[in-house]
Amino acid sequence: MKRIGILGTGTVGKTIGTALLKLGYEVKMGSRSSENALAKEFTETNGSKASNGTFAEAAEFGEILFNCTLGMASIQALNLAGKDALKGKILIDLSNPLDFSKGMPPSLSVCNTDSLGEQIQKEFTDLQVVKTLNIVNCEVMVNPAKSGGEPTMFICGNAAPAKEKVLEILHQFGWKDCIDLGDISNARGMEMLLPLWVRTYLSTKNGYFGFKVIRQA
Amino acid sequence: MKRIGILGTGTVGKTIGTALLKLGYEVKMGSRSSENALAKEFTETNGSKASNGTFAEAAEFGEILFNCTLGMASIQALNLAGKDALKGKILIDLSNPLDFSKGMPPSLSVCNTDSLGEQIQKEFTDLQVVKTLNIVNCEVMVNPAKSGGEPTMFICGNAAPAKEKVLEILHQFGWKDCIDLGDISNARGMEMLLPLWVRTYLSTKNGYFGFKVIRQA
Repeated sequence: MKRIGILGTGTVGKTIGTALLKLGYEVKMGSRSSENALAKEFTETNGSKASNGTFAEAAEFGEILFNCTLGMASIQALNLAGKDALKGKILIDLSNPLDFSKGMPPSLSVCNTDSLGEQIQKEFTDLQVVKTLNIVNCEVMVNPAKSGGEPTMFICGNAAPAKEKVLEILHQFGWKDCIDLGDISNARGMEMLLPLWVRTYLSTKNGYFGFKVIRQA
Repeated sequence: MKRIGILGTGTVGKTIGTALLKLGYEVKMGSRSSENALAKEFTETNGSKASNGTFAEAAEFGEILFNCTLGMASIQALNLAGKDALKGKILIDLSNPLDFSKGMPPSLSVCNTDSLGEQIQKEFTDLQVVKTLNIVNCEVMVNPAKSGGEPTMFICGNAAPAKEKVLEILHQFGWKDCIDLGDISNARGMEMLLPLWVRTYLSTKNGYFGFKVIRQA
């Protein structure tokens, strides 16, 4: 369980990858090209446990994969990785189907009666999709205390053993209050939190926050 | 500011109305018929400050109105009240466009690029719509401590003075942490929290909760 593939080399992928290296994991960042400059920089600056390659190479490398691509490009990126490389793997899907085509604030390209998490699971039936972490910015993902407290993290997916493994990583990141909502259809509610996240961010001018479910013990 | 009209005589309307009476407001519950049994019971059991009537009579009575009708019936109920009776009034819209036609969990009948709050504001231009309270169950609405802590309440609407008056009532209910998101288009994010509310409720078997925005002070 110590080899992780990251799909996507943007700020989110780099932040997740760096945090995983600090936790002792071996991390391969995947992108369209193994010559991707950001991914090469990640490899060159992070020692022997860091590497990079194509989407397919990162998917083959990791037992657990993080989907850090833009939501609207995720299915395409996973197709580039290929069903063979993805077979049997756990995919932590932290992306959101944000549609910025009409400016800020974004809408969702899918919601309500479907979700990106479900679309990925439906397209890649041999992948174990676990939706989580998509409801905070990437620095809070790997360090919830950056919110100034102990927010709640939701998790959902069809495979209970996969969720157990993902919960281990969430705990390593510092998430203490995690709620398992159930199967992957719960990605709807988690992704539909994004409009409120964006509007809270625009209103408070602060992206370092999380949502806590305040409830009777 | 001491006369309030409640549109809708279900559990939500009754809970809101009873809480407002305790705070010293005069409350008229409105329904399709002034002979509505639940509304008459409200009048008979709550002393001289409680009364009931038609939607139009409740709307005329109150300076502030609460929309406690089912979301999918709200526009129809407001049309029954009539634009004359609604003119210049503040409407606290705590409803949600929940569509149970396909069973549990419900979907939303409008979301993403529109919202029920916006639809009401667009249809009733002389009404000052303030969206709030829709993100918790009605007992938590009037007593946030029932969640076991201090959750956050969001508020949005186009008219700042109307929001100030609504915030006074929120504070009287016990809401200490309120975030004004801006104009009524922010109802989208607030209503889109409902799928996560429902799924959290189904997962935890506990409806007495609220969401707190954990953030740096």
